[in-house]
Amino acid sequence: MSDFFNAIPQIKFEGPESQNELAYRFYDKDRMVLGKSMEDHLRFAACFWHTFCWPGSDVFGGGTFDRPWHRGPHDSAAAAMKREVAFEFFQKLDVPYYCFHDADVMADADNLTDHRRFFAEAVDHLEQLQASSGRKLLWGTANLFSHPRFAAGGATNPDPEVFAFGAVQVRDALEATHRLGGANYVLWGGREGYETLLNTDLKRELDNLGRFLSLVVEHKHKIGFKGTILIEPKPMEPTKHQYDFDTATVYGFLKRYGLENEVKVNIEANHATLASHTFEHEIATAAALSIFGSIDANRGDPQNGWDTDQFPNSVEELTLANLEIIRAGGFTTGGFNFDSKVRRQSMDPADLFHGHVGGIDVVAKGLLNAAALIEDGRLDQFKTERYAGWNGEFGEAIATRDLAGIADLAIERNIAPQPRSGGQERLENLINRFL
Amino acid sequence: MSDFFNAIPQIKFEGPESQNELAYRFYDKDRMVLGKSMEDHLRFAACFWHTFCWPGSDVFGGGTFDRPWHRGPHDSAAAAMKREVAFEFFQKLDVPYYCFHDADVMADADNLTDHRRFFAEAVDHLEQLQASSGRKLLWGTANLFSHPRFAAGGATNPDPEVFAFGAVQVRDALEATHRLGGANYVLWGGREGYETLLNTDLKRELDNLGRFLSLVVEHKHKIGFKGTILIEPKPMEPTKHQYDFDTATVYGFLKRYGLENEVKVNIEANHATLASHTFEHEIATAAALSIFGSIDANRGDPQNGWDTDQFPNSVEELTLANLEIIRAGGFTTGGFNFDSKVRRQSMDPADLFHGHVGGIDVVAKGLLNAAALIEDGRLDQFKTERYAGWNGEFGEAIATRDLAGIADLAIERNIAPQPRSGGQERLENLINRFL
Amino acid sequence: MSDFFNAIPQIKFEGPESQNELAYRFYDKDRMVLGKSMEDHLRFAACFWHTFCWPGSDVFGGGTFDRPWHRGPHDSAAAAMKREVAFEFFQKLDVPYYCFHDADVMADADNLTDHRRFFAEAVDHLEQLQASSGRKLLWGTANLFSHPRFAAGGATNPDPEVFAFGAVQVRDALEATHRLGGANYVLWGGREGYETLLNTDLKRELDNLGRFLSLVVEHKHKIGFKGTILIEPKPMEPTKHQYDFDTATVYGFLKRYGLENEVKVNIEANHATLASHTFEHEIATAAALSIFGSIDANRGDPQNGWDTDQFPNSVEELTLANLEIIRAGGFTTGGFNFDSKVRRQSMDPADLFHGHVGGIDVVAKGLLNAAALIEDGRLDQFKTERYAGWNGEFGEAIATRDLAGIADLAIERNIAPQPRSGGQERLENLINRFL
Amino acid sequence: MSDFFNAIPQIKFEGPESQNELAYRFYDKDRMVLGKSMEDHLRFAACFWHTFCWPGSDVFGGGTFDRPWHRGPHDSAAAAMKREVAFEFFQKLDVPYYCFHDADVMADADNLTDHRRFFAEAVDHLEQLQASSGRKLLWGTANLFSHPRFAAGGATNPDPEVFAFGAVQVRDALEATHRLGGANYVLWGGREGYETLLNTDLKRELDNLGRFLSLVVEHKHKIGFKGTILIEPKPMEPTKHQYDFDTATVYGFLKRYGLENEVKVNIEANHATLASHTFEHEIATAAALSIFGSIDANRGDPQNGWDTDQFPNSVEELTLANLEIIRAGGFTTGGFNFDSKVRRQSMDPADLFHGHVGGIDVVAKGLLNAAALIEDGRLDQFKTERYAGWNGEFGEAIATRDLAGIADLAIERNIAPQPRSGGQERLENLINRFL
Repeated sequence: MSDFFNAIPQIKFEGPESQNELAYRFYDKDRMVLGKSMEDHLRFAACFWHTFCWPGSDVFGGGTFDRPWHRGPHDSAAAAMKREVAFEFFQKLDVPYYCFHDADVMADADNLTDHRRFFAEAVDHLEQLQASSGRKLLWGTANLFSHPRFAAGGATNPDPEVFAFGAVQVRDALEATHRLGGANYVLWGGREGYETLLNTDLKRELDNLGRFLSLVVEHKHKIGFKGTILIEPKPMEPTKHQYDFDTATVYGFLKRYGLENEVKVNIEANHATLASHTFEHEIATAAALSIFGSIDANRGDPQNGWDTDQFPNSVEELTLANLEIIRAGGFTTGGFNFDSKVRRQSMDPADLFHGHVGGIDVVAKGLLNAAALIEDGRLDQFKTERYAGWNGEFGEAIATRDLAGIADLAIERNIAPQPRSGGQERLENLINRFL
Repeated sequence: MSDFFNAIPQIKFEGPESQNELAYRFYDKDRMVLGKSMEDHLRFAACFWHTFCWPGSDVFGGGTFDRPWHRGPHDSAAAAMKREVAFEFFQKLDVPYYCFHDADVMADADNLTDHRRFFAEAVDHLEQLQASSGRKLLWGTANLFSHPRFAAGGATNPDPEVFAFGAVQVRDALEATHRLGGANYVLWGGREGYETLLNTDLKRELDNLGRFLSLVVEHKHKIGFKGTILIEPKPMEPTKHQYDFDTATVYGFLKRYGLENEVKVNIEANHATLASHTFEHEIATAAALSIFGSIDANRGDPQNGWDTDQFPNSVEELTLANLEIIRAGGFTTGGFNFDSKVRRQSMDPADLFHGHVGGIDVVAKGLLNAAALIEDGRLDQFKTERYAGWNGEFGEAIATRDLAGIADLAIERNIAPQPRSGGQERLENLINRFL
Repeated sequence: MSDFFNAIPQIKFEGPESQNELAYRFYDKDRMVLGKSMEDHLRFAACFWHTFCWPGSDVFGGGTFDRPWHRGPHDSAAAAMKREVAFEFFQKLDVPYYCFHDADVMADADNLTDHRRFFAEAVDHLEQLQASSGRKLLWGTANLFSHPRFAAGGATNPDPEVFAFGAVQVRDALEATHRLGGANYVLWGGREGYETLLNTDLKRELDNLGRFLSLVVEHKHKIGFKGTILIEPKPMEPTKHQYDFDTATVYGFLKRYGLENEVKVNIEANHATLASHTFEHEIATAAALSIFGSIDANRGDPQNGWDTDQFPNSVEELTLANLEIIRAGGFTTGGFNFDSKVRRQSMDPADLFHGHVGGIDVVAKGLLNAAALIEDGRLDQFKTERYAGWNGEFGEAIATRDLAGIADLAIERNIAPQPRSGGQERLENLINRFL
Repeated sequence: MSDFFNAIPQIKFEGPESQNELAYRFYDKDRMVLGKSMEDHLRFAACFWHTFCWPGSDVFGGGTFDRPWHRGPHDSAAAAMKREVAFEFFQKLDVPYYCFHDADVMADADNLTDHRRFFAEAVDHLEQLQASSGRKLLWGTANLFSHPRFAAGGATNPDPEVFAFGAVQVRDALEATHRLGGANYVLWGGREGYETLLNTDLKRELDNLGRFLSLVVEHKHKIGFKGTILIEPKPMEPTKHQYDFDTATVYGFLKRYGLENEVKVNIEANHATLASHTFEHEIATAAALSIFGSIDANRGDPQNGWDTDQFPNSVEELTLANLEIIRAGGFTTGGFNFDSKVRRQSMDPADLFHGHVGGIDVVAKGLLNAAALIEDGRLDQFKTERYAGWNGEFGEAIATRDLAGIADLAIERNIAPQPRSGGQERLENLINRFL
């Protein structure tokens, strides 16, 4: 077993008053909340990419993290070391799940053959690590955006060979996810978009993306994978425009290709805000459209216009997000995956724990607050009363008429509807009582 | 006939070299472009609201425009004067079309009865004015957002009486549009959204909006209106979040309620940019999804985050927009409506002409440029070559296989696709040759 | 005495557990915090304009608030009623201070003579109301942006007569503020900016603005006003660009005209975020530049690009803001003025109380949290250690050398500085312990 | 001599009608415009970093450019090859100037000693290349942001050793710039800002930055460098907040440290728009404040919130920018440096030429248009008339009075200033005549 983090103790729940920086103050996995344990509500996962693959580089500078597996070429030995350290981390953090892209967990491959071989090695190892650590796979995915071959997209690439290369990766990653007992399979189309309309056949690219997704769904059924297929909306970056802009766009896309009952969304907080939505808006929209799947937990910087992927640190935001998740019926196959990265200056290995422990507690406190709001009932009561007219005589009368029938009824009654207070400030104050 | 603008000469085409500030330099309505007159391509309309109803106020200050019809109460006489001046303007500008909201053209009404009576008066007058001026109606609409009763929405209002009040207005406005020979009927849901999720039943509101739209479509068919029903996307403002966020969102909404063959979009440039899209993106998206309808021509300020509704003044932007419109097959029932307003400091009546004349010429020059680009062929040729692989042997081979079949073929051939230049800078330079 | 709010009880502190929606849970005015009462720390004020002048209109619709003083013309009687109701409100809310623009408190004037007469009437009445209610004036100001004469600016207007008209208003408002014992005098230049550079002489306008401010400062001294002159930064809206963009811009402006020791900033939260800064950034910057003056408490909507002026409701944000205020030494003449408005749908008079009570408690809780963080000491300790090198031998050695001397020392010692963790996630977790 | 670009012909002026994609259509270097050659007006430079150092990577993927000097370690041989290819490019493009960071032109160094040695080698070579190619240095700079040691800043680093390391680099780079006859020396503080206020001593960092700049200015004089010291404003990225936010902020900073007559700004178009300003606003502001220095020519994407550094392709934008430059008196030591990068998909070496040739022509056409506008005179005439009142009797009367004197004069004359049209639409139309 890896001992990279041997300076870090096992992370445990110690309660709100604990002065231990590396203990959970709110995440008490066995605590029952609205009839379910916190562990089952939140289904936390940590990820490979930001935590074990990213070297601390950005567009303006090189890596700042000194990790042994980054020191030489990313070969089979380095990849194995990385996998072991990752599982040491998952276990020490005591999150039940983890997530990966194919490229995250394997040695760097120059060609298709090596890609498949190195990935297969990695999957064998992951299977062992899962067994020995008791960790489970929340979702797997294939990286169709980092290698130069994907510069112009994966499934939306003008070159059909790239589409086919992607098909190899996705088939392998989907089958690996199935074998590893993954609860979901995710597609994030970082390059499925365009840089300029001048060289882009928008309709063809949308249709190719629709076809690719249909093929994946078909293959899922063929191999008997019972997990959920998820799409992760994002409006832009790295592309100028990404086709999966937001939840509402993805819904239209799914409807267009007849996939709205097959695919759900993996909502990322920072992607929501980049698309000019609140995090809770995206969850509520997905719930209303019956495509809510899973969460990538992080946050953006409201003053910066790129994907900062910071750890969630706002209980206020997470209370509202959890409220919408509870209202949506909670997770089925999904969970809270930390698609968050420590800042480039947070180069100590311990910083990985500070980020995750703080993030987990913020989400957990948000759940507790949201549950208390639900149990309190006043918030829901306000809403019920606000729409009560639709259950009254007039509301029911117009429910069965056509436009002319409704208009005639209104005229006959000479209606003069009066606006009523939406009570926004009162409700905001009410929320603040539960934070 | 009104003579409010008697200081302004009839606006005519005089050619690029004309030094007359109030002449068209590019809009030569009878000039044939790609087999169709410019008038038939562009189908220009001017609007009532910004040009004749808005007094030059903003959130921080009162009206700056001295217009006689604003001086007293907005009664029947004032409304009649406004209609006459508007038609004087449409005629002098020589745009074939105009557009209106019910509230724009009528006296202020305190109740349902007055609303219907004053609107009926207005429609009679509009019919006469159309006949005498030779102007036509591009579209009519009903204003379900200005009156306090609509503070919480029209079709999405928590109070069913407001829904019903809206039904009266929309039935009347749709029937008036039909009677006046309107080419389209528009719905812009300025308050169809929410201020806070805390008091909002998102799913119910979406369903009510879907039902309302279905009723309108049904009524259209019932009365035999052959024009197009249009929805105008906008992401936000006045609401925090508007349900018709952008074209892709509207598409999903239409699919959800089975209306995708009944309703199209009226795309506004400034709404596109508020939604983080380019104007041409929204047109191209609508075309790809077969819901392109009409245009509200204006522009926003890239540094300001609200709807500035300025007159279009970028030939660069309008060239790209016209290119997408031509590719979409051009307008059928739609057209270029100037949903643009002069600046609050542009209080001279002549400024209304400067704004429109400049805007019309910018759009017209954009059309000429776009047509030249199409005729040149190099831009399309680049795109054809970029996607040529899909028509080749490999592209066709993968078109009929399932995921495993494609993956197996890729492995068998040991493909190693190489990225190719997207040529963005070359194409941008090519565009610049045509401006 | 006015009894408009007779359905509302006097607002009092009842403690965190109180279930009374209209009581303070955290604002306990006599509680001592870091050696000073909460009242003296926070110096709360309510304002006239949003709360008593705005009718609930926006750019897309009319007023939704039914207030008796809005029902007819805004004459002397209506203005007097408004002033009385306002003081009833200030007293019931138990805020020690209030703020006004000249135009807020007086009847509408058509000309200079009436303006001066109506304002003088209003000031007499305010003096009586202050005496009878025990409320004090935090600051006064003159409105040089709402009337059409200010469409192109006040002090920056191309027309010198407008500059002079502004001088009349500002002299009168400054002298009234002096007479009423105001603690500060504010200038907010809503139209001091430009709509387009095409018609703007930027340098001349900056110089005119600098001169105007110099004249105001000179007059302040002449009349013996001991309060602080404040400028309120805002980046844009209503203008395309406002000259007082943010605190750093205002600082440069003050330095240019030699006023940096005479004028301070009134920082508004929503203006900070419109300028792409956090609220606390603007406070910290003002403190670093020795120009921190006062606060306009509100918040924007992170997804909307205009000035929403919502009530503060984030304890997280207000904790960080209070932290910077405490570090800056706290308010001297400044205070927390609620430049916040209830939503357009919050049309009940009680909503005005919900907004203010909630906002006051959020600010108060933020103060308590910030004080606890200061007393805890860990946050400051981290910072001290982070910069400790500057107090060490090397830091001191380079403090007295020139560039070559420093470079030579570095070479001589062959330094190889190692990056150290900035601990951002740990510090964010630490903050969360105090919320 | 390098022959990496041997497939590319020497780039020459061929006139607007040329169909050669790699010829100048507008940049005719010897053409006289307003009494000066285009070459002397525009003083074009190309840069090392984006064009020869960046491998085509982004945050989501690896390098896409196959350049021989990137294939192995970046040692002395690779660095020499890069320098030679760069000068081949500068010459073929026929730009008179180039720009570099120390790290761009030299082998990768692990320590201070190597840094100085490799840089010295590079400077010797650059001197030879300048002599043989006839190219000149527009500016040099030192990279204090890419290496991990600068993760927390250069001059603003909490660690004084990093400040000292930066002093070594800047002294060497400044002296090299002097030796190479550079016209300017630039400081861009990519990491001179903060990631979070929680760990930042804002005042100390500002003071350290001020001191560093003062030391640089002092050293410049000591060594007799006659070029201009330039600061390049940018609001954010890579940091959450950068201290040199925009031109107005830099002005205040310079005033604070008494450097406003010593340092000017290097304005980048994309940084202007990231700071919520137009490009021309930043130029006009710098001119008004007498700190206009040089230009980094590129553009951002109005829909994307990060620094895209695209080649300028809008003649509309460049016409307005050139107009402000001409009004500012034109460049003295500054010039138009292409801080622009081809898109990641533009991996052909020829794309580097397409980007620069198009960009140069856009800037050149902008100059021609701006000169024509100046010669036409109508734009300036409008502005002169708009402010004419300040030269009239009233304007002069108020120029010498104090606040009370002005107010009394206004009252005595009972002034009633009337707003006048700002003519924005007319002026925008006028501009469009010259594009």
